[in-house]
Parts: sequence; structure tokens; C-alpha cells
Amino acid sequence: MSEVAQTLEGWFTLHDFRTINWTAWKNADESERRKASDELSSFLQEWAGLEQNKQGSTAVYSIVGQKADLVLMHLRETLEELGELENAFNKTSFAQFTIPVYSYVSVVELSNYMAQPGSDPYQNPEIMARLKPILPKANHICFYPMNKRREGNDNWYMLSMDERRGMMRSHGMIGRQYAGKVKQIITGSVGFDNWEWGVTLFADDPIQFKKLVYEMRFDEVSARFGDFGDFYVGNLLTNDKLSAMLQV
Amino acid sequence: MSEVAQTLEGWFTLHDFRTINWTAWKNADESERRKASDELSSFLQEWAGLEQNKQGSTAVYSIVGQKADLVLMHLRETLEELGELENAFNKTSFAQFTIPVYSYVSVVELSNYMAQPGSDPYQNPEIMARLKPILPKANHICFYPMNKRREGNDNWYMLSMDERRGMMRSHGMIGRQYAGKVKQIITGSVGFDNWEWGVTLFADDPIQFKKLVYEMRFDEVSARFGDFGDFYVGNLLTNDKLSAMLQV
Amino acid sequence: MSEVAQTLEGWFTLHDFRTINWTAWKNADESERRKASDELSSFLQEWAGLEQNKQGSTAVYSIVGQKADLVLMHLRETLEELGELENAFNKTSFAQFTIPVYSYVSVVELSNYMAQPGSDPYQNPEIMARLKPILPKANHICFYPMNKRREGNDNWYMLSMDERRGMMRSHGMIGRQYAGKVKQIITGSVGFDNWEWGVTLFADDPIQFKKLVYEMRFDEVSARFGDFGDFYVGNLLTNDKLSAMLQV
Amino acid sequence: MSEVAQTLEGWFTLHDFRTINWTAWKNADESERRKASDELSSFLQEWAGLEQNKQGSTAVYSIVGQKADLVLMHLRETLEELGELENAFNKTSFAQFTIPVYSYVSVVELSNYMAQPGSDPYQNPEIMARLKPILPKANHICFYPMNKRREGNDNWYMLSMDERRGMMRSHGMIGRQYAGKVKQIITGSVGFDNWEWGVTLFADDPIQFKKLVYEMRFDEVSARFGDFGDFYVGNLLTNDKLSAMLQV
Amino acid sequence: MSEVAQTLEGWFTLHDFRTINWTAWKNADESERRKASDELSSFLQEWAGLEQNKQGSTAVYSIVGQKADLVLMHLRETLEELGELENAFNKTSFAQFTIPVYSYVSVVELSNYMAQPGSDPYQNPEIMARLKPILPKANHICFYPMNKRREGNDNWYMLSMDERRGMMRSHGMIGRQYAGKVKQIITGSVGFDNWEWGVTLFADDPIQFKKLVYEMRFDEVSARFGDFGDFYVGNLLTNDKLSAMLQV
Repeated sequence: MSEVAQTLEGWFTLHDFRTINWTAWKNADESERRKASDELSSFLQEWAGLEQNKQGSTAVYSIVGQKADLVLMHLRETLEELGELENAFNKTSFAQFTIPVYSYVSVVELSNYMAQPGSDPYQNPEIMARLKPILPKANHICFYPMNKRREGNDNWYMLSMDERRGMMRSHGMIGRQYAGKVKQIITGSVGFDNWEWGVTLFADDPIQFKKLVYEMRFDEVSARFGDFGDFYVGNLLTNDKLSAMLQV
Repeated sequence: MSEVAQTLEGWFTLHDFRTINWTAWKNADESERRKASDELSSFLQEWAGLEQNKQGSTAVYSIVGQKADLVLMHLRETLEELGELENAFNKTSFAQFTIPVYSYVSVVELSNYMAQPGSDPYQNPEIMARLKPILPKANHICFYPMNKRREGNDNWYMLSMDERRGMMRSHGMIGRQYAGKVKQIITGSVGFDNWEWGVTLFADDPIQFKKLVYEMRFDEVSARFGDFGDFYVGNLLTNDKLSAMLQV
Repeated sequence: MSEVAQTLEGWFTLHDFRTINWTAWKNADESERRKASDELSSFLQEWAGLEQNKQGSTAVYSIVGQKADLVLMHLRETLEELGELENAFNKTSFAQFTIPVYSYVSVVELSNYMAQPGSDPYQNPEIMARLKPILPKANHICFYPMNKRREGNDNWYMLSMDERRGMMRSHGMIGRQYAGKVKQIITGSVGFDNWEWGVTLFADDPIQFKKLVYEMRFDEVSARFGDFGDFYVGNLLTNDKLSAMLQV
Repeated sequence: MSEVAQTLEGWFTLHDFRTINWTAWKNADESERRKASDELSSFLQEWAGLEQNKQGSTAVYSIVGQKADLVLMHLRETLEELGELENAFNKTSFAQFTIPVYSYVSVVELSNYMAQPGSDPYQNPEIMARLKPILPKANHICFYPMNKRREGNDNWYMLSMDERRGMMRSHGMIGRQYAGKVKQIITGSVGFDNWEWGVTLFADDPIQFKKLVYEMRFDEVSARFGDFGDFYVGNLLTNDKLSAMLQV
Repeated sequence: MSEVAQTLEGWFTLHDFRTINWTAWKNADESERRKASDELSSFLQEWAGLEQNKQGSTAVYSIVGQKADLVLMHLRETLEELGELENAFNKTSFAQFTIPVYSYVSVVELSNYMAQPGSDPYQNPEIMARLKPILPKANHICFYPMNKRREGNDNWYMLSMDERRGMMRSHGMIGRQYAGKVKQIITGSVGFDNWEWGVTLFADDPIQFKKLVYEMRFDEVSARFGDFGDFYVGNLLTNDKLSAMLQV
């Protein structure tokens, strides 16, 4: 067996993609829509309060194209909290006007290929800030799940630790070139959802998503070993923009 | 033909994943919801009684994410009992408020790679306890189906018995490191459902699912020969939590 | 071009998998349900009459798990008869309470790898009984479609007739070990449906399905050349059990 | 780049597979059904008139199994005509009782592997009759789409013109053995639909579909290079049979 | 890591494929249909105005076959504008009569394999005209998404820059033979949608789509490295043709 790369885990994560049932929304009377909007607002406020208290973080973006109208990305301390949040939201009036279209369950993860021996990473404030991050309010979001490939000669999990460490280092160096342009949050989903990782990117200029992902694709770790799921891209929904989006 | 590994079979198993139709549930009047809840409760009581009498076992968990709201995992002596249970449940008022989203039919299985010659395993009480297990009430569940791969040079079924036995032994040793942290129930589904096995894990700390499955992925038997279906992860639904979940 | 194995064809076959719309069934009033049940009964009687007259055969099983509630497996002399049967059934009141979920069109087939030269197999009563079989009323059914693989070095259709004949002989010998335990009906679907063959197994003990399919998987013809579709397993529906199933 | 095989194109083709919404059809009152049937009849008459005038051809078959209830196969001079036909049909009362389940857009094609140098094939009446064919009214239809494979060593498009020509010749010779039994219409769909070709077969004896497709599968061009989509098989719908099919 | 080909990006692009709910459209009363048509008309006018001002471009085509009834292809300066356009359109009365069936998010892209060193391409008016193109009003449209393959020995992203540049040059030369017959717009979607590129072709003669795509398939860059998604083909919808299409 190859040596296993150690991982650090932080907040549990739920990406909740939904489409709005516009016909139902338009057919509802004004008071129903107001009730639904108010329930949504009070949830948004509650989530913002949690974020204030560093008990979690929530980001809200619209999604471009027919795959979804919006995504709620929630980070919480436990899987139970995510389940309760999901259940509470499903029971709101607002949720009745939405159609769930995709979700992803994972946990913020740092891979420890570069770990310093002899120190406890969970005591390191810098590491803890990355494991329990407050989500940026960048203009754009990009999400996709991915696997490391296990096919014939392109089998990541049959490589030695040294081979994997070398490739991950070069991979990380591409990411670092985008520092200040793209913020990347890696979440691990082995045992939780259908792919091994989720990648969530934040940027003010969406062209940077394309540049980053395309450049990485030429890197051996992606070129030979990356299998990618569906890509979702969207625009920040401030409270005002969310109101405008729902205005009919 | 390669020598076939003998298997032992115990209780038949049905994983029944369902989503709640929240709009219908909220729109129902109080008495309809009470009737549905009462029918569900009486089934849960009946199933608990069977478990008491060691005639089967049932576990109830919520599922995190949009794949399902809950899973009922049933173990019973015969396929007929599973079919009757399913039919009876489908006719409850509660079931009318749910949408079936996935199910899995299998049978508790022990692979006999390590079998002792000359003894009848079905007379061994320790083995029988594993073939007809009472499901643990751990905080979390993880389920996924899997195949052994048959592709080009990575063809499990073309390996010799010795090669397979050696890999399974090393695989089992990883599992044993998680003793006390993760309880694993393997169910065989060749001839019953779309994958060859179902894996159901139970743990109080869900991060242990990730650690276990990830560590195993570096083991040759998974790295080269494991093909995995969808992963489901969830939280224990005690009767109180189930009531709270359904409270609107 | 490789030499083509000759095949013999018998009755055309339709596997018709359906789920019951339980909400509609329960919401229907008693007289509607009785009308639907009566129409179903009279079809079952008609089909039993045909079977009596050796003009076809029909088997009715429930399916365990959410894939379907029941399967009607029909064997008839011509494709026209199958089409007419399907059309007539679709127009019954009972069919309005069902949702079609899967079907398979094929024809009972004997492969002629072991053919005796110089004799007309269609004049052989033993062969004709296998080509136009009365379906057994065993306790359990198992159905799955399959292909012979054509991938890289594992290309069945590029093997010589001798290689194929040798493998099929060894394959058949496994089947023969299950004589008396599992009855197997092979139907060919090249040109008729999405896979090349359908396999329908009948047994009183469903564990024998698992033993048989698993043992075959280690045989080269399955290990290297078998690609399998979805598996369906179920319980015999006698008229009494069918009535009980529909009782609400 | 490999030399490209020239192709000749004739009539544009739309295969339009639909399922009948039997519940709606039965629930409609007699006058609604009559109106729908009359609109369907007048379209069938119009299409028969076009066929008479050699401005196109239309075939109507029922489909066996749940994939569809019927297929309308239309050949017309232009893509605009197909689009208009489709739009007009979608607006009929009859179409409101159907559910579109699959369609295929292609153009009648002759591959020019055997072309005679120095002659204009579009001036050849025999070729033109094959490019703008009146569809036979055989008892049965079989349709499937297909690709030429491009995988590893089995990459059709990397073969030389000579290799491809040789294989196609041997392939065509199998087809010729079925002359008088199976009529084959090849339609090209590169740039029009999801596969590279559609194959539509007509025969009075459906077993000939199976014999032909199975025999071809052992031919290298199919064995190594053929990738096949879903198969549809059906029975001729004369006007009388169509009326009987819709009679409730 | 292979050297990365630089790319230039222009207008963001949304392909919005929709099917018309004909039953709802026919059942609506005349005034509802008029209101929906009027809202659609005013959007079309607004989009034409933007095009006039070179602030974007919109093309409207019907789609042949059941995949969709029409496609709206929108080019805009920013991802926010696309999101707002989509949201505004979803709230129209017309949209309530449509069912979204597929969409694609990308950005007009020029690959810079042939870039001139030392010049700023974004200052080049010819390049800018190609990055922010006014969509042609050709009779026909063809759309498909595609990837460059990464499988075993056919891994585009593991090739050297020189190998890729050579193949792309030969590929481009095929395209140039169709100058005047087919207009091609390449949009990049790495990080935005499920495939790496979208290809939109415009032609007055749809047979040219087939000729072009088929000829390219024999070119090594497609033969070995092209993976293609679904193909959509359609007819130009002028305002008059759109009115006729919606007339019931």
C-alpha cells in the first residue's frame, strides 16, 4: 500500500443548488411572496449572525445558465448542524418555491503533503483560519467536484508518496500565481458524496476562473489524474440583488 | 476459471432512501399529518419489536444533502419479508408524503477468504452474530455500493485466489485499525442489485468515514480494483429527532 | 470476419416492469379499484388460457426495492402479439394506476455452439420445448440484460469460433451445476433492445441467484467479456398474493 | 490527416418517437378523441400525398416495449420542411395526447467508398432513388444510431482510406446477403445529432434484424469500431391498425 | 508541465435552449398568448437595440427534433449581464410557456497558438471584432460542446506546445476551406460549464455542417483528441417565422 497523505479537516460544508419555480412564484399572491421573502431574510440574518460569531459561514450566489438559479454554500461545525439547517430551510415558505437541483456534502480540508513534523497543526491559528474560513464576498463563484483518476497507467492511488508530493507541489505553485485574484477552498468528500473533492473558487473577475483551471489542466496532476464533474459559475447575491432577483 | 471465494449469507437487506414532499406535508391539515405520523410510529414500534426478538433489525437515519431526506435500512430473514414490508410501508399515509429516490437490495455477507477448513461456519455463534446483526445506533451512517473492477489489466476476477486473498487480508487490516471507531456491514448484491456489494458504515464521528475510505483507497484492492457508486451520509434519527424533523 | 455462432429463436419476449402509483390507488374509490382489479384478473385469466394452449406463457412477480413494484414477463409467438398485448394492457383501468419504469424486448434463444450437424433443430421436440418454454412458477425471479464486451484486448467478437466455443462450454458447465436449483432462460435482443441478451433466472431459494452469478463472474467469459445492466429480483405473485399486494 | 471518404446526401430525416398519454386519452371525451384522430388522419393524408408526388416519404410504426408507443419517420427535401412539419404536428390536438420520448435528425447518406471516378452521382437515377427513397411498408422497423469508435488502438478515423475501404466492402457483403429480406436506410447525422449515423431497417420477418445485426457484429468494422445507441423495434401501423390502437 | 496556450477572451455567452409547452400554450386564452408574445417581442427589440449599439448580440433559431423548440444565443460584455438577462427573461409571461432543456455558459475565445509576439491583441481591431462578434443571421445554426481528450496515450494536455500547435494549424486549415460557407464561433467554457469549449456554426446550407465536422473528424486533433457532447441543429427564426411558429 502507498503511504497515505494525512489530511486536516475543518468545517462541514453543504452546497445547496436550487432553481426557482418562477411560475409558482408569479402565481402566488403578494402576501405569500412577502411571507416567503421574510422567512428567507430572517434565515439570511441568522446565518450572518453565526458568521459574525465565527460559528460558521454562508455564501449566496446566483448561478448563470439553467443548471440552477442560486446556490447557498453553508459551512458549519458539525454534520448535525448542516442536517438541521437543511431541514429547517426545507420547511420555509420560500423553499416551497424552489426546486432542489444539486447538492454537495464535504468538509473543508487541507492536505498535509507539506506538513511540518513535530507540530500540532490544529494548534496553528493560520491553519485553523483556513480550516474554518469566513467565505469571501467576491463578485463570482465557481464550483466543481473532482476525483483523482484510477485508470490503467494513470492511477493516482498507485503512485508513491514522493511522486504525489512532487506533483502536488507544482500544482500548488500554479494556484499561488493567482493569489489575490482567486481564492480557493478545497473540501474533501470521500465517504460523504460522489466525488473525492469539491473545489470552490471566488474571484472578482470570472475570467480568472478560466485562466486558473485551464492552466492547471496542463499540469500533470490534472492532465493525467484529474476527473471533473459539472461546473457551476455565478454572481454574488447581495441582499439587494437577491431582492431584485425575486421582484416580479 | 479462477477459484471462487466462498461466501456466507445472513439477513436480506433493503436500504430505502426517500425524500419528503415538504410542500404536500405542509399543505396537509394537522389531522392528516398526525395520522401519517401515527402510522409511521406504529411501524417503527413493530420493527423495534422484531429487533427485540432477533427476527430482524431496522435503522433510521436522515441523509444530508438533496439526495434524500431519510433512509430506512431493514434486515430481515427472507426476501419475501422485505417485499411485504416494502409493500405495507408503501400503503401507509406517511409514504404518500415521501418520494422514493434510491434503494438497494442485498444480503449480509461474510467472504470466506479466511475460512477455517473442516468447521461449519453457520454453527459458529460469532459468525452468526455477524450474519444477522442488530444494527448499531451510532450517530452517523455512510452507505455506498461498489464493484470489483474488470478492466484491461485491472481485472479482479482474473486474479488467482492467492492474489485476491493476499490483497483482501491487507485490506481487512486497515479496517481493523478503525475498530471501535467505525462499524462496517458488508452486504452482497450480485444477482440482486446493480453493484456487487453494498457497504454500510456506522460511526459516532463522521470524519472517521472519510479517514477510513480515504486510507483504503491507497490500498491496491481499492486503488486498482474498486469502482464506487453514490455515497450517502447521514445523522441518526431517534424517535425524538424524527418528530422534530417532521414538525412544521 | 470471425465465424458466426448460429442461433435458434423461439418465442418473442416482453419484460414489462411497472410501479404502482400508490397515492392514486389509495385515493381511488372502492368501485374504481374493483374495476381495475377485475380487468387485471380477466387479463391474467386470458394469459393463463393461452399458456394452457401452449400459445405463450406469462409470469407475474413483485420486484423488491424501488426499481419497480412488479414485472409481467410475456412470451408470445410473434412481435405483433406482444405489441397488441402491450397496447391492450395500456388501455386497462389497472394500467392507469401504474407507471412504466423499464421494459425489455427479446426472443428466446439457444446458441448453437454445440449444434449437431445434419439435423434440423426445429424438428427436435426437446429443443422446441426450450424455445417455447412454459415459465416456471418458482418463488423468485432475477432478470438482467448483458453484452459481450468489445474493448481493447477483451473483444469477444474478435475471438475465433474455437475460443468462443471453449469458453461457452466451460460457462455452461457452471450453469449445469445449478440444475434443479436455478432455471435459466436466455433471450437474444440484438436488433430488438439496448443489450445483446436478457437473462431471466427462476429459483425457489434466491441465494442461488447470487451463488450462480458470482461463480460465473470468475469464469473468463464473464470476467473478461461480460458487461451487465441493471439487476431486478423479486417474489412470485400468485393471484392471492397479488390481491393482498393491492389490498388497501 | 487520413483521406476523407466522400458522402452523398439526399433527403433530410426526422425520426419522431412518442408515447401516448393513455390516461389523458381515456379521460378525454369522445368528441375530443375524434377531433384528435381527425387531425392525425388529415396529416397522414397530407404526408401520403407528398409521398405520391415524390416530395418526401413518411412511415408510421408502433414500437414494442415502454420506450415509445409509435414512431413517425419523415423524409423531406430540406431541414426547414422538417422543422415546419414538427411544429405543425406539435400544435395538433393529437400531439397533446402524446409525450415526445426520442427523436433523431439526420440525412439520407450514401458513402462513396465505391464511387466511380469521372461520373456525377447526383445525375445517376439509381443513386438518386436511394438518396430520396420512398420508405417501404414492411411489417417491421428497427432503428438504432451508431458511431465509429475512436478509442486507443480502435480508432476508425486514424485508419488509412484503404483499410477503411476494405472493411466497408466486407461489411457491405454481409448486408447484400440479406437482400430481399432486410431493406436498410443509412442516414448521416454528423453535425445534426448525437451519433454519427442512424440505421433504419425494414423487414417482414423481425428475426432477420437479429440475424443481420448479430452477423455484422462479428465483422471487424462492427466488432472493433462499432458503438451503438438504443435499439427500437416495431410493427407497421396501417391506418386500420392505428385506429385500432387508439380505440378505447 | 506543458507550456500553456494563451487565450484571448471576448463576450460572455449564454446558449439558452427551451421547449415550448404546447398544451399550456394552446390552452391559454388569446389575451394571455398575446401578452406573452408582446413581452417576447419587446425583449427581442431590446436585444436588437443592444446589438445595434455593439453592446452584445443575440441570435434566435428553432431547433429540429425533440431536444428543444428554440435556442436563444446571447453574447454580452459581462457575466452579470447574462445573469440579469436570464433572470428577467425567466420572469416573462412567455417563459412560463417554455421548459428550459439545456444551456451553456462560455466566453468567446481565440486561442493564441499563432500569436504575434510583441503586439497587444486586444488593441487589434480585427481581433476585437472576432472577440465581440455580431452573430450572423444565416439560415442555420449548429451547436455542440467538446473536450480535448485525456485518456491513456491520447492525452492532449500531455503533448508539447509544438505538437499541439502543429495539429491546431492543420485543423484550422480545414476550417478555412469552408470560409464563406460556414461561420464558426468558438467559446471557451473551462471553469464555466461542463465541457471545455462550445462550438457554434452558422451556414445557409446545413449540409456544410456535416461536411465540415465529418472532414475534421479525420484530422488527428479530432480523431484522437476530440470528445463531443450533444449536437443541436436548427433553422433561423426571423420575427415572422417566430410569429408563425407560435400561431395556434
